Formats: sequence, C-alpha cells, structure tokens
Amino acid sequence: MFTNTDGAAPTPAIESVAFADVEAAARRIAGQATRTPLLSWPELDRRLGTRAFVKPECLQVTGSFKFRGAYNKIKSALENGGSVPGVVAFSSGNHAQGVAAAAAQLGVPAIIVMPADAPRIKIENTRALGAEVTLYDRYTEDREAIARGIARDKSYLVVPPYDDPAIIAGQGTIGIEIAEDCARLGIEPDVVLAPCSGGGLISGIATAVNARHPNARVFACEPAGFDDTARSLAAGRRLENAGNAKSICDALLSKSPGEITFPINSRLLSGGLTATDAEALAAVAFAARRLKLVVEPGGAVALAAALQGRAPQAARNIVIVCSGGNIDDEMLRRALSS
Amino acid sequence: MFTNTDGAAPTPAIESVAFADVEAAARRIAGQATRTPLLSWPELDRRLGTRAFVKPECLQVTGSFKFRGAYNKIKSALENGGSVPGVVAFSSGNHAQGVAAAAAQLGVPAIIVMPADAPRIKIENTRALGAEVTLYDRYTEDREAIARGIARDKSYLVVPPYDDPAIIAGQGTIGIEIAEDCARLGIEPDVVLAPCSGGGLISGIATAVNARHPNARVFACEPAGFDDTARSLAAGRRLENAGNAKSICDALLSKSPGEITFPINSRLLSGGLTATDAEALAAVAFAARRLKLVVEPGGAVALAAALQGRAPQAARNIVIVCSGGNIDDEMLRRALSS
Repeated sequence: MFTNTDGAAPTPAIESVAFADVEAAARRIAGQATRTPLLSWPELDRRLGTRAFVKPECLQVTGSFKFRGAYNKIKSALENGGSVPGVVAFSSGNHAQGVAAAAAQLGVPAIIVMPADAPRIKIENTRALGAEVTLYDRYTEDREAIARGIARDKSYLVVPPYDDPAIIAGQGTIGIEIAEDCARLGIEPDVVLAPCSGGGLISGIATAVNARHPNARVFACEPAGFDDTARSLAAGRRLENAGNAKSICDALLSKSPGEITFPINSRLLSGGLTATDAEALAAVAFAARRLKLVVEPGGAVALAAALQGRAPQAARNIVIVCSGGNIDDEMLRRALSS
Repeated sequence: MFTNTDGAAPTPAIESVAFADVEAAARRIAGQATRTPLLSWPELDRRLGTRAFVKPECLQVTGSFKFRGAYNKIKSALENGGSVPGVVAFSSGNHAQGVAAAAAQLGVPAIIVMPADAPRIKIENTRALGAEVTLYDRYTEDREAIARGIARDKSYLVVPPYDDPAIIAGQGTIGIEIAEDCARLGIEPDVVLAPCSGGGLISGIATAVNARHPNARVFACEPAGFDDTARSLAAGRRLENAGNAKSICDALLSKSPGEITFPINSRLLSGGLTATDAEALAAVAFAARRLKLVVEPGGAVALAAALQGRAPQAARNIVIVCSGGNIDDEMLRRALSS
C-alpha cells in the first residue's frame, strides 16, 4: 500500500486492479451471478451497419450489473479471514439492491442508507431482498457520514458503489464473459461501449477486455450533462459536472470520476461518448420493441450512442453493454409512447 | 411412408419426428438461430417456491421461436437436393416473420399470404425482412387455397405453421438446448411448460426432452377458450375450440391440434394447463418488471400458468418457455398499467 521514495515521507499508492483480480472475482461469482449471454440480432446489425453484440446485464440478479461487484467485495472480505458481522452501503438505486442480494446470498446482514424521499418501491424492493433500510434526510444529513458511523459502531464492512478495487474487479467479470463469448463466436471485438457514472463498471470491463483483446477500443458512455469522464479523459484530470445538471438516467448521476477508477480509465479507455435523455429514451424503446429487453435509461446510454452513430464507424464487431433494467412502469410507458 | 398389412390396401402412416431429426435440425440452425440462454432469478424461485428456469425465445431472431422451424424446413429441402425456387406461407404473425427471415438468410424468395386487415406494422415488418406480401380478404377468400395456388404455379415450397415434421424438429431444438443447459447446471428438469397452439413447439420440445430426460413431465399451456390440446389429450382424440372464442393471445388461436402434432403430444405430454387473458397479461407485466424481458401474451401463458400455481407442486426444477415477444406497444403499456 505504501511506496518509499528516498528521503521522502511514505506516499499512499493509488490502489489499482489487475486482470488477475478480475479472474479471481469471476471464480467467486460463478454460480451466484447470472452468466448473461452475448446476444445479436440481424436487425441491429443492419441498423448499425456492422456486427453488433449486446451484453444484457438487465437480466442479472436484481436487474443490474451491481450484484457482481457487491458479491465480490463481500466474499473477498470473508475469504480474507475477517469475520464480517454485516455490511453497509448508501444508494437509492441499483447498488442498494445489488448489495442487499449479495449480502443475503452470503448470509451477512446488510444496512442500506437511503433517502427518506426515495421512491417507496425502491425502499420496498431493498427490504424484500432482506436488507435493513435506514432513511435519512437528503437536505440536512450526509449519507456517507451515516454509513461510516454505522460501519464504525457495528464493525460493518462498507460496500462502496464504485471506487474500490474489489467492486471494480467484480464488474470486470462482464469483460471476461465478453471475451469468452467472442472467442466462442470466433470474433475479435474492436469496439466496446458501456455506460459510465463513477467509472467502476467501465474500468473493470476495460481491465478485462484490454488483457484479452489489447486492440479493442473501449468507450465510456454518459448522459449529456454528466459527461465528467469524457471531459476528464480529454483534460487528463478529474473534472466535475455542473451542479444543476439533470437527467432521466438516474443510475448515472455521479459528480465526478472516482479516485481509483479514473487512473485506470485514463490508461485504458479510448474516450467518452454521450447521449441526450431523448436519445436514451429512444434506445429504451428500441430495446423493448426490437430486442425484447427492458433496459432503464441509464442502462441504455451505450446503445443510444451506438444508435446515434457515435461509435467509430470502421468497427467490424461492436459490443454494447446494457447495464440495467430497473425502470419505473411510468418511464417505460413513456418510452413506448414516443 | 406406407406400411403393408396382409391383404389390405396400403395405409398412409402418420409422419412423425424422431429425436435424431431434432438433432439434425440443431446442426442446421447452429450459427443461424440465436442460442438462447436458460435464465433464472432468485425472485422467481421464491415466487414459485421451487427452482425455476426461463427459456426466453422472445430473444430469438424475429422475436419468436418460429425462425427455428422455418429455417430447418427450408434448409432441409435445399439439402435434399431439390432446387427451391421460393417458399410460401400464410400467417399474420410470428410465423410470417420467421419464414421471411429464414428465407432471406438462405437466399430464397418468400411470399407471405396475409389478411388485408392485418396490422400495418406486421405487414411492414414482414416486407422489411425481404418477403413479398400477398394480401387476401379473410371474409371471402381461403388463405390456404391461395398459398397452395402459389406453390403450384411457381413450384414454391409451402412452409406450414406447425403440422410438418421439419417444422416440429426445428422447434424441438429448444428442447435440446434446455437439456444441454440443464446438464451444464447439473440439474434434472422434472417439469417443462411451453405455450401451445397447433402443437408444433410443444411436440418438438417434448420429443427432445423425453429423449434426454424421460422422467420429465411436459405440459402444453393454452389460453382459456383455446384449450383444444388440453381437452383433446384428456379425451384421447382431436377436439375443436368453440368458434366464438376470443383471446388477447393472438399467437395461440389455432382451432384444433394438428394431425401430426397430436399423436406425438398424446404419447409424450403429461397434460395441459390454461391461463386466462388477465393472467397472461399479469405474466407479461411480471416478465417486464421482474425478468426484464418483453414477452407477448401468448408467449407468456406458460409463465402465467406457473405464476398461478398450476404446475405440479412437487417439482424441484421447472423450466418455462417464453415463446415470443412480439407485442404491440399499446398492449405492453396496458400490461404495465395493471
């Protein structure tokens, strides 16, 4: 964790993730997470003018990729000999459900810190997965402080949403599966697109894809107004989004790239693509009508960017990750009315 | 094709389908049809009180299982040395699209006979797949006669919707994939549920499942009012549905079991289960909300029967085929409003 430079004080090294960490995560989640397929449709190929493949993580346990990282984080802690009396996380969305399900599967109590005004259905879903939900007032209280307090008082393990090597390695198992399925199909993926918020998913995928297919170009896909990773990659340093930005892509609203994820993404990504809310909603409708998959707006931004022709046009084989499907009935009806 | 009985005139034997025919079909469609996965969700297991697996044929090329049988039928004819100048089929739904796509993939012209008042979107989808569409008046004209006329005049191959050994064998490839995936998971399926109309899908699946898992019980699932197979199985002879029956399960409205499918189903099925339109619609909503799959009402009747607790309750591993996802926006919105 620390490197010594002659005569200087020890400097904390940035934690990172090696391909071996992703391989270890793949062994941990085997038989626990759903092994999602790599799907294709002649119609999607025609529409994009290239061979295209979709990795539907909406079909994952709890409806998003988040289960992978959460399971890997908790299981790693258990393997590392520690007793894990419980876990705590803060999230009002996909991460909450992923942590709750992973903890339940491993027999570990979970407390999820959620805003008191979160949609009742999300609070109920999280409770239905066996987690205890602690509500906080998002205007007067700090959810991270509450989670840290619980972790300290009860010796619980914090399961962060993205900025953690075990979380990144867990999400990276998607990249291993993509590489395995491409090998089985005898194809070389040359472009991989995945949604990006704090960068845990894309940094994990890039770590695995880069190890297996070093020539593949990996792009982070973000909602317009939340293109912090695209801008940060271009600037070479972590930039924040404007405080007043809004998007229907509720899974992708982080403020800035992570401290751990950004150096990985700087090294491995080829850039960032964006999609507007209207484009994301059109991609949700396309997925439901044509691919028969229910994808949430944030889960559909990579598909949206591809449908808008923003992926490199020389690509022969493009892989698109649809990262989640936890969309409200109302939003899906809206997509189907457009 | 003919068996001689001493002193009697030759009697045409009923054509049937052997497991080897299904295996040959699996080799033909490999790399052409989508190898759909066998999916599971902890939430579905809890809901059904058993381990459950879904075979999502809504993810198949053209959004339903129909592509499998159509491809096998046309490819078999090409292999059997005949030139196939073109194919003709009558259907306003999933079979039309399956035949159009299979013919296009094999470079064979296709004419689809569709009712003039079919939904414009279905006519357009079929044309978009490269087929020529011939419209007929469903009140004054006989679509089968029109198709036979085209077949005779142009020497085109008729691709029937279900009552044909090559079609049955093609649909049966679903059963082989179920058996393969169960073997990979180390489980023995003891109950298999699939939607049933003319019986091509279920007879093919039963042929394959019975060969690999002789103790598995296979059930045909039908909409209320169209339970001709369930009643025919109980009666031991082919019965018709009432002429005035109606259902939103537009893929499952055949009048009676097929001449070729029924003897197979009589021998291999354990019975029939039914679901009402409201139950099918609730299953469509469950699939979209919980499984993140878009399933049409007819494609969801087996899931509906399972959700209603109609499958044998002692089952440990139940496999549910969701056969198609070609649902109108309006119907999906309706399901999501219930």
